[in-house]
Amino acid sequence: MLEPIAPINWEKDQVVIIDQTCLPEKEVYIYPQKVEEVWDAIKKLKVRGAPAIGIAAAFGLYLAVKDSRAGDKKGFLAELNKASDYLASSRPTAVNLFWALDRVKRAVEAADTDNVADLINLVHKEALAIRDEDEAMCRAIGKNGASLLRDVDSVLTHCNAGTLATSRFGTALSPIYELKKQGKLLKVFVDETRPLLQGARLTAWELHQAGIPLTLITDNMAAAVMARGWVQAVIVGADRITANGDVANKIGTYGVAILAKEHNIPFYVAAPASTFDLSLESGEQIPIEERNPEEVSHFGLRRTAPEGIDIFNPAFDVTPSRYVTAIITEKGVIRPPYKQNIAKMF
Amino acid sequence: MLEPIAPINWEKDQVVIIDQTCLPEKEVYIYPQKVEEVWDAIKKLKVRGAPAIGIAAAFGLYLAVKDSRAGDKKGFLAELNKASDYLASSRPTAVNLFWALDRVKRAVEAADTDNVADLINLVHKEALAIRDEDEAMCRAIGKNGASLLRDVDSVLTHCNAGTLATSRFGTALSPIYELKKQGKLLKVFVDETRPLLQGARLTAWELHQAGIPLTLITDNMAAAVMARGWVQAVIVGADRITANGDVANKIGTYGVAILAKEHNIPFYVAAPASTFDLSLESGEQIPIEERNPEEVSHFGLRRTAPEGIDIFNPAFDVTPSRYVTAIITEKGVIRPPYKQNIAKMF
Repeated sequence: MLEPIAPINWEKDQVVIIDQTCLPEKEVYIYPQKVEEVWDAIKKLKVRGAPAIGIAAAFGLYLAVKDSRAGDKKGFLAELNKASDYLASSRPTAVNLFWALDRVKRAVEAADTDNVADLINLVHKEALAIRDEDEAMCRAIGKNGASLLRDVDSVLTHCNAGTLATSRFGTALSPIYELKKQGKLLKVFVDETRPLLQGARLTAWELHQAGIPLTLITDNMAAAVMARGWVQAVIVGADRITANGDVANKIGTYGVAILAKEHNIPFYVAAPASTFDLSLESGEQIPIEERNPEEVSHFGLRRTAPEGIDIFNPAFDVTPSRYVTAIITEKGVIRPPYKQNIAKMF
Repeated sequence: MLEPIAPINWEKDQVVIIDQTCLPEKEVYIYPQKVEEVWDAIKKLKVRGAPAIGIAAAFGLYLAVKDSRAGDKKGFLAELNKASDYLASSRPTAVNLFWALDRVKRAVEAADTDNVADLINLVHKEALAIRDEDEAMCRAIGKNGASLLRDVDSVLTHCNAGTLATSRFGTALSPIYELKKQGKLLKVFVDETRPLLQGARLTAWELHQAGIPLTLITDNMAAAVMARGWVQAVIVGADRITANGDVANKIGTYGVAILAKEHNIPFYVAAPASTFDLSLESGEQIPIEERNPEEVSHFGLRRTAPEGIDIFNPAFDVTPSRYVTAIITEKGVIRPPYKQNIAKMF
């Protein structure tokens, strides 16, 4: 049976990463032996997606210290901290990266031993645990989401919140993989997701290789697909969710949510508990990163827009919670009223 | 003063065409001396946009017969018909192309002379008249549209319904050029318009060269722009309008119309009377051309989606008239109820 692949994993005693910069043209696997190669893989987006980056960083730490010659825990921790600082410099705004590095360090700090071989094992065990817990989280989202999509034939998704962004299975795509396991094959309409085409390059690739039927469209075709009655649900991931249920996600998500509402199609957001930022009351408080205008004015190396013009290139948009039918987490499905029900869950 | 350019024109005793396949990277003008070069320019999309193609074809006919050695009207008409059939083969589904060719032929057929020099002049005069009437139509749309946009600071447009698609000034962009002439500079948000990027390549280029401030966005950013209150109107062209006011236009238009409604932004369609197809009651009867999937799966020569997947690539979508605030024509502005008011105007 075709299964969604793990984009970063520990297999046959080594780290294995699928190089996502080669997708969809070539399926290239790399086997980092040194921490520098993991740093490079994160830096160059060979591995991307917040959970996957965290897992890669944890395995990177293990590669950095696995041949440690430190004499005691103190010396070992010094090496670990150095490697951690180094890995943290690969993508300085990736929250999951810091979280994973801190978690491994804390585990070592808490260990009551000076035996360096044991500490090395602990780092490895912790990296594997981060991977396993992420996979369990994705599967739980898949099961919770599957119950919502059981009577649906086709869904539409935006960007990539799939197996390639996590340990495995993904968030938004996990219910689709789960339903396949249960014997129900959903069809997926995939927004290409300009400007970086994560939908065309990654989501289309991973669904196709897992044997899920899909139709690729440009972002501006979603409305025409909905008007034809071809999709009965939309499901997307999230980068951050505020206390009132507003959802920051890849640019274009908000537009899809409006289109779904206009066509009476449920709009689901699938995201782990760690995505909720209860320190923010509403989406207006979420800072929106603006990215390099060349992502819009160029395609590959070719300029496709005139020089000297203004370009707006926000990485994310905010979908107000009134457009969100339900939020699917590993702990269960949250429905409106969001403020109360999010508070209740956490 | 910067003026919108004429993409196909008669200047200094010759035909001049701006080669739109070189835009936005290079501004290349070609000066066809023979009908074959005009055929080639239409075939290869160096000149595109229904009105501009019609004008090019008429000038092409003139180039074909301007050195005619026919002895009488009958011989001249035979040459003209041969050239017309040849030009008609350049883009076999372009209605304006056939219309322009027929119009020139009918003028010659109706002429009461055997003097071939006079007939040659008549062909030239008719081609110039087609150009001039198109320009007058565009200007009238500009004036009628300007009255609707006088209190607006920024508009959003989709695809290219500008000077590059017509004799000059365009349809959707004509009110913006007209307002500039009147001293009011509107800012334009330009959807890049996947898959063929007419917004990024053509609309951004022509507005920029005419000194109109613009911001280029990917199609999926329109909702985020509207949410920020940055545009107060949407204006687009049309490929066909049915008796009830439904509008077929470039794929993505329908989605923009929904977003405009959700943000309480007026949605205007600018199109000449010739766009109305009163033989069709509603948009459901409009056949929608599906184009080559490679427009979506590739960018230039580079594949950006995996092989073997399904792709949906409709060229147009239909915006139901309930989303259309007003239709701007050269004869005046049409508002709901469209069925009655369209019937009244024609």
